[in-house]
Amino acid sequence: MPVAQAVKDALDSSSMIRRMFEEGIELKKKFGTDKVFDFSLGNPDLEPPEAFRQTLLRLVTEDAPGSHGYMPNAGFPHVREALARKTSHEHGVTLDWRHIVMSVGAAGALNTVLKAVLNPGDEVIVSRPYFMEYRAYITNHGGKLVEAAADDSFNLDIDTVRAALSEKTAAVLINSPHNPTGRVYPQKTIAALAEILLEHGGKTGRFPYLVADEPYRELVYDGLAVPPVLSAYPHSIVATSYSKSLSLPGERIGYIAVGPRNDDKDTLIDALIYATRILGYVNAPALMQRCVAELTEVKAAVYMYAARRAAFKKVLDYAGLSYINPEGAFYIFCKVPGGFANDDRAFVDALKKQLILGVPGSSFGAPGWVRFAYCVSEENIRNSAAAFKAAGGR
Amino acid sequence: MPVAQAVKDALDSSSMIRRMFEEGIELKKKFGTDKVFDFSLGNPDLEPPEAFRQTLLRLVTEDAPGSHGYMPNAGFPHVREALARKTSHEHGVTLDWRHIVMSVGAAGALNTVLKAVLNPGDEVIVSRPYFMEYRAYITNHGGKLVEAAADDSFNLDIDTVRAALSEKTAAVLINSPHNPTGRVYPQKTIAALAEILLEHGGKTGRFPYLVADEPYRELVYDGLAVPPVLSAYPHSIVATSYSKSLSLPGERIGYIAVGPRNDDKDTLIDALIYATRILGYVNAPALMQRCVAELTEVKAAVYMYAARRAAFKKVLDYAGLSYINPEGAFYIFCKVPGGFANDDRAFVDALKKQLILGVPGSSFGAPGWVRFAYCVSEENIRNSAAAFKAAGGR
Repeated sequence: MPVAQAVKDALDSSSMIRRMFEEGIELKKKFGTDKVFDFSLGNPDLEPPEAFRQTLLRLVTEDAPGSHGYMPNAGFPHVREALARKTSHEHGVTLDWRHIVMSVGAAGALNTVLKAVLNPGDEVIVSRPYFMEYRAYITNHGGKLVEAAADDSFNLDIDTVRAALSEKTAAVLINSPHNPTGRVYPQKTIAALAEILLEHGGKTGRFPYLVADEPYRELVYDGLAVPPVLSAYPHSIVATSYSKSLSLPGERIGYIAVGPRNDDKDTLIDALIYATRILGYVNAPALMQRCVAELTEVKAAVYMYAARRAAFKKVLDYAGLSYINPEGAFYIFCKVPGGFANDDRAFVDALKKQLILGVPGSSFGAPGWVRFAYCVSEENIRNSAAAFKAAGGR
Repeated sequence: MPVAQAVKDALDSSSMIRRMFEEGIELKKKFGTDKVFDFSLGNPDLEPPEAFRQTLLRLVTEDAPGSHGYMPNAGFPHVREALARKTSHEHGVTLDWRHIVMSVGAAGALNTVLKAVLNPGDEVIVSRPYFMEYRAYITNHGGKLVEAAADDSFNLDIDTVRAALSEKTAAVLINSPHNPTGRVYPQKTIAALAEILLEHGGKTGRFPYLVADEPYRELVYDGLAVPPVLSAYPHSIVATSYSKSLSLPGERIGYIAVGPRNDDKDTLIDALIYATRILGYVNAPALMQRCVAELTEVKAAVYMYAARRAAFKKVLDYAGLSYINPEGAFYIFCKVPGGFANDDRAFVDALKKQLILGVPGSSFGAPGWVRFAYCVSEENIRNSAAAFKAAGGR
């Protein structure tokens, strides 16, 4: 056996999605890129903002000595300082530079947090549906994912989370704005979550961490704001990145922010730094660290995604399909129409025949739904209307 | 308990080294940077070569669309193609682009390989002394480090490796040029290792992987060449980076090369790509990938390190200290002088009083030795002679 059994099993079970991606590439080759409506991947098609390009060019031109060398594992102090200011503002708390640990994207941040805090057999509660890689991240570090079903509107359901809490609960992992549904958890939901976690900790002596995965924080619509987490619950940690807001997913630049009211936060920060080191990240990429430190005031191009959202809703309305109105991120979660008897894979197949690619909700623990990513051109979205209508009418 | 017990234990046991680093910073503040001889860290002080700086500037100026976005998890195909050519040349095999998986440095590469191949309880044989983080890398993924003592000259000892082999041996991990001793394993040692691994595999039905961690491959002296690994043993994998050869440790750019004669190598490559994804690296930093693809002909500044090595040997000779003659890398492994009764920590303390910083051999599993890194200025090395003499004469 050439590879680990668990990895082998995962490869086998993830092959359905891989096949879909490969089929997508084949479809584009066969029919032409503009004839295929590829809403499968959350890869922003927008280029990084002009301010990023100018900052990068300036830093590379200046070429300061030591700028590509090792720095402390947690990142350059001035970078951590800049992001502490930004995070303090976003979360209504006062962080200093030590509360920030730079990471290899949000995925690196989450793995680092889980490595730092999970004992073998510890549980992490996740609201279902959820981003499919969470299970692997948690399992990587000896933990167990415990699902808590969301409510009918895909908001976090406080009752199912409460029922999922146990003495083994090390953390509750939330994601708002939410992939795949586009939901933004309201302030009162975060407050209610904090309340049950405090209550649980008071009873058991173990306060679960609230880990907020929020790379989409800036991507919200209709004047909505994502409520703060670090000020809502003392034992909270934010994991985030610049992948979505500045369209830098390939550069792997993100960070962890540790809530200033965590118990024994110095040990927690030391553990995060140690985990960063031994998981082989060592540190976040140096040049990108220095870039993002200068871009804390630059905003994501929300208006572009808002226009695409509007276009997508119009297309789905035209095709007679129901969906969850996205409050943030760039995903639209669409109900499988009646003719498919809730079979999301059958609907995805029917869509594929019309050259539309989406991800079955089953992949997120939500059969009966399909996720479409609208980080593609508005024109491509508009042109998909007839294809959607044809696919939905079974 | 705010963090995982295993992480807490590791923090406690690694605090000796951390204290040393902190004391180093304090010493420099107190006495001035040029008065302190900091040979503790393997952080190249050389700037990246001019060709890197020009390539980076050109790529950033061109600013090609999509260049900071996601690419396949294994890396840009043209980058993989360029490194396949380079690796084929170095290892005397024929690789194509699919055999290369880009990684977040060599540490990321090693974690990816171990995640991909280790089943719970599997063993990885490492020649002692060894880079101290190997133990954590292996434990991260459920494996167990099994030590095989090197011979008296710190060459790999085929007999101890053979004795360490078991049915649970998933891999033998080698590092040549070697940290901390500077040894380069000769071709006949690699051939003998291949022979016992083939013999073991023939008997047990399980052929251990030979994993070669070789970020120092280009840093060799006296016309030496590091013998190829991929052509020596079919089930071999190279993990490497540009951290040392191009002085880019902060940028986290490296790669994995899979030997073309591995059994079921397509599954192995799929497993490596999956491991890259779920460990949260997702992919190696995009801009640096594109840089290194154009620098396959650029050589490390070996002459600079050779001059430093010569200076360091002169200093140790003057102080009457014995050491292993470094054949590669930028470390010199020095015997604790007689007056210290083999106590490397006591010798490190005596050195510190003379403002010299080194790492005790105990940290690498080799008590009675001290490691000095000579990736600092030649002047700093030369100026340390009197301090070494004063410290050694107890």
